[in-house]
Amino acid sequence: MENPRTGQIAVIFVSQRTGADAAGYGAAAEAMAELAAAQPGYAGVDSVRDAGGLGITISYWIDDASAIAWRDHPEHARIRDLGRARWYDWYTLKVTRVARGYRWTRG
Amino acid sequence: MENPRTGQIAVIFVSQRTGADAAGYGAAAEAMAELAAAQPGYAGVDSVRDAGGLGITISYWIDDASAIAWRDHPEHARIRDLGRARWYDWYTLKVTRVARGYRWTRG
Repeated sequence: MENPRTGQIAVIFVSQRTGADAAGYGAAAEAMAELAAAQPGYAGVDSVRDAGGLGITISYWIDDASAIAWRDHPEHARIRDLGRARWYDWYTLKVTRVARGYRWTRG
Repeated sequence: MENPRTGQIAVIFVSQRTGADAAGYGAAAEAMAELAAAQPGYAGVDSVRDAGGLGITISYWIDDASAIAWRDHPEHARIRDLGRARWYDWYTLKVTRVARGYRWTRG
């Protein structure tokens, strides 16, 4: 089945948690997920973190301008600074454009 | 810091495991990771799965031809059929091109 995300922007965030301040991190992650979902052009998210603290979050945006506006959102910038100060050992971020996609579900 | 993956193809595979045949799945996943890494144009992987069986694997390729050749690799196709028969409830796959990227590491 064709996937409707073709043409969307997929922002791939891979991160390793420090393990410090789990409560603060959890609250901030929840707040950022809610705030992102309220932004113009938001198109969804896929997110997984394992028990060792390695995580991948992919946020989807209808165009590059929406993704850039979220990057530049003041509250997002503030939380990003906290993330570097407390919550992450490292992260990588890649901005990509979806060329094609498929989905499969057990029948 | 600029990320060197700009221009690469990132293939995003999001999947939900059934929970069935964990040993068979583990062996196949390891074999596929090794086989992918031996293909021309392979440029790396990021992969996380949580305790509930939700996983995201992103494989990176130097160009679209490399990603397509891996998609069409006969052994990969055989394992994909097993995955649909046994290991996955659903999955989505998106082929993307990296426009820009960054990395950050605790100093």
